[in-house]
Amino acid sequence: MTKETIQDIHVEKAASTRINEVDFNNLTFGSVFTDHMFECDFKDGEWKNPTVKPYQPLTLDPSARVFHYGQAVFEGMKAYRDDNDETWLFRPDENFNRINKSCARLAMPEFPESYFFDGLKTLLDLDKDWIKKGFGNSLYIRPFVIATQSGVMASPANAYKFIIICSPAQSYYGGEVRVKIADHYSRAASGGFGYAKAAGNYAGQFYPTNLAKEEGFQQVIWTDANTHEYLEEAGTMNIFFRINDKLVTCPISDCILDGVTRKSVIDMAKDMGIEVEVRPIKVKEVIEAAENDSLKEIFGSGTAAVITPILGFGYKGDKWELPKLDSPYASQIKNKIMEIQYNKAEDKFGWRYKL
Amino acid sequence: MTKETIQDIHVEKAASTRINEVDFNNLTFGSVFTDHMFECDFKDGEWKNPTVKPYQPLTLDPSARVFHYGQAVFEGMKAYRDDNDETWLFRPDENFNRINKSCARLAMPEFPESYFFDGLKTLLDLDKDWIKKGFGNSLYIRPFVIATQSGVMASPANAYKFIIICSPAQSYYGGEVRVKIADHYSRAASGGFGYAKAAGNYAGQFYPTNLAKEEGFQQVIWTDANTHEYLEEAGTMNIFFRINDKLVTCPISDCILDGVTRKSVIDMAKDMGIEVEVRPIKVKEVIEAAENDSLKEIFGSGTAAVITPILGFGYKGDKWELPKLDSPYASQIKNKIMEIQYNKAEDKFGWRYKL
Ligand SMILES: Cc1ncc(COP(=O)(O)O)c(C=O)c1O
Ligand SMILES: Cc1ncc(COP(=O)(O)O)c(C=O)c1O
Repeated sequence: MTKETIQDIHVEKAASTRINEVDFNNLTFGSVFTDHMFECDFKDGEWKNPTVKPYQPLTLDPSARVFHYGQAVFEGMKAYRDDNDETWLFRPDENFNRINKSCARLAMPEFPESYFFDGLKTLLDLDKDWIKKGFGNSLYIRPFVIATQSGVMASPANAYKFIIICSPAQSYYGGEVRVKIADHYSRAASGGFGYAKAAGNYAGQFYPTNLAKEEGFQQVIWTDANTHEYLEEAGTMNIFFRINDKLVTCPISDCILDGVTRKSVIDMAKDMGIEVEVRPIKVKEVIEAAENDSLKEIFGSGTAAVITPILGFGYKGDKWELPKLDSPYASQIKNKIMEIQYNKAEDKFGWRYKL
Repeated sequence: MTKETIQDIHVEKAASTRINEVDFNNLTFGSVFTDHMFECDFKDGEWKNPTVKPYQPLTLDPSARVFHYGQAVFEGMKAYRDDNDETWLFRPDENFNRINKSCARLAMPEFPESYFFDGLKTLLDLDKDWIKKGFGNSLYIRPFVIATQSGVMASPANAYKFIIICSPAQSYYGGEVRVKIADHYSRAASGGFGYAKAAGNYAGQFYPTNLAKEEGFQQVIWTDANTHEYLEEAGTMNIFFRINDKLVTCPISDCILDGVTRKSVIDMAKDMGIEVEVRPIKVKEVIEAAENDSLKEIFGSGTAAVITPILGFGYKGDKWELPKLDSPYASQIKNKIMEIQYNKAEDKFGWRYKL
């Protein structure tokens, strides 16, 4: 996959680099940013002034709509450097399409494809030294769009900023993860915007997650808001269940983010000869499988960690631990996907995108 | 109601006023702001540096959590000036309590009561010339809290700003309002945070509202996300139905904002001898009442307009018009509440708060 035509991206270079201040062996996810950022303004009905410039604060009126009405969407993707110093993205078209789906649902203007890719290329080219070699190292890329128009009226803004910031990341280990299956709180309404990567889908999860933490869990697996009988997804991961040798994950709906890693896991697992079922999964089924030992693994999929194994889960006060396997699907599939991401294996799905 | 002890609010006065640039007879709601704003920072586990300062832009890191994860809540209240040049708030304790409920649900720190009231007093005292006399004129007050900590991790921030900005408002006439009753899209999940005045509850309404506008409606009345059988509320208003001579409104739940105007309307209507029922209302019941002419009025209640009469509604392609009454409950109740707000009537409920 390649894209041509670098459009008229305006470039302002930083006078100096901050890269020497950064300890690349000791990175906290999402806390250090590269020297530059990409910014583009929506005004008078069109996106204009695509600019790469030094990473810098935003100046916004206190009445800017993003602060009051939550018109804000984002994406999360990564750049990888291979042993030959070439830089790769992983399925960036998926992120591009998804941010525009998110925008549409929040009545925000869609972003032009050429600006997205040309902005990314120009930015990552300037900041390429921040993308470190080594399996597991990457540059986390955060495109986002916010409503900047001032005025406290609850209606769609007519001015926005599309921004890309980048943060170097190491192999992500989020610690041991046990999850609580939600039985009261919920993440998304059917007919709502749970499928959008919208800022408003995240803050609401923090309080119930804090409650789960008090019970010894690190994350929540959300269930349908209506009955709490069906499993949906975790805060920033889609969820897979291995029952005997079959992988099961729930279908995409308007409540669930259509994860890029999720669809890659499905394709990769099938390619590895693993049976995959995409269908609604009841909490009850997972508990029964845990009780009769047919539940072998649960794992989450997402850009940050690729795959996060889940060691145990709780539901309404009861807790279950998962078995420790020698060669779990989680690590097999994670490795296969990472080999594609880092250009260490043939890219038979056409997922790699050379910058 | 009064509160004492002006705490150590730091005051920086604006060098000059912008008030002479403002046409107070031609105000667009929420678009002009007064000379000053109140700002307070949450850092190291506590709220500090309460400051009234010239209205000015905010400078935030592009990775500030509010842009990515939607930790943002707000309030809406008004100040009124009576014929003796005294300034009044309307039930501000309700707004104070509600912003803290909203904060709690979004894992944001609660704000101290003394800072809230002392900040308000100091701010409104400096900007008192912006509160114009005249029935219908007011100063719209917008307290809000945003997560300012930088770093793109989906977890609660440890730094916030609490801000109050103020915008002069005229008697609010939102034009003729006909509403579409939602049958597919929804506003809030049960178990979610629909009851919070959180930024994330608003952006999701814009797209379905745009669709309703294409069908000739100005707003949407939301129904429960589960069955779409029960009426909930409009985008920024609670909803009342007058069936024959009885007022009906749905109960508060975790999906519905506990509106200050709603509870004032209920109390005022009862006081006027109107029968009020607070109970779940089915869409079907309202349609039947429209068909058999027992549906006399629908109106919305909210701080901006107090009461907004609704002229008609639509549901799944059908439309109904409401009768034109000589002395509708909507205007009777609105007038009674405004008389209290503007210190023109006895305040038997203790709603007025003198600044
Ligand atoms: C709610 C939610 N679900 C799932 C995912 C995983 O999506 P992806 O694999 O595209 O990163 C994310 C993003 O990281 C998310 O925010
Ligand atoms: C969703 C929603 N419902 C109802 C209301 C009315 O609440 P209040 O009467 O407190 O202004 C508002 C706020 O204006 C609102 O945002």
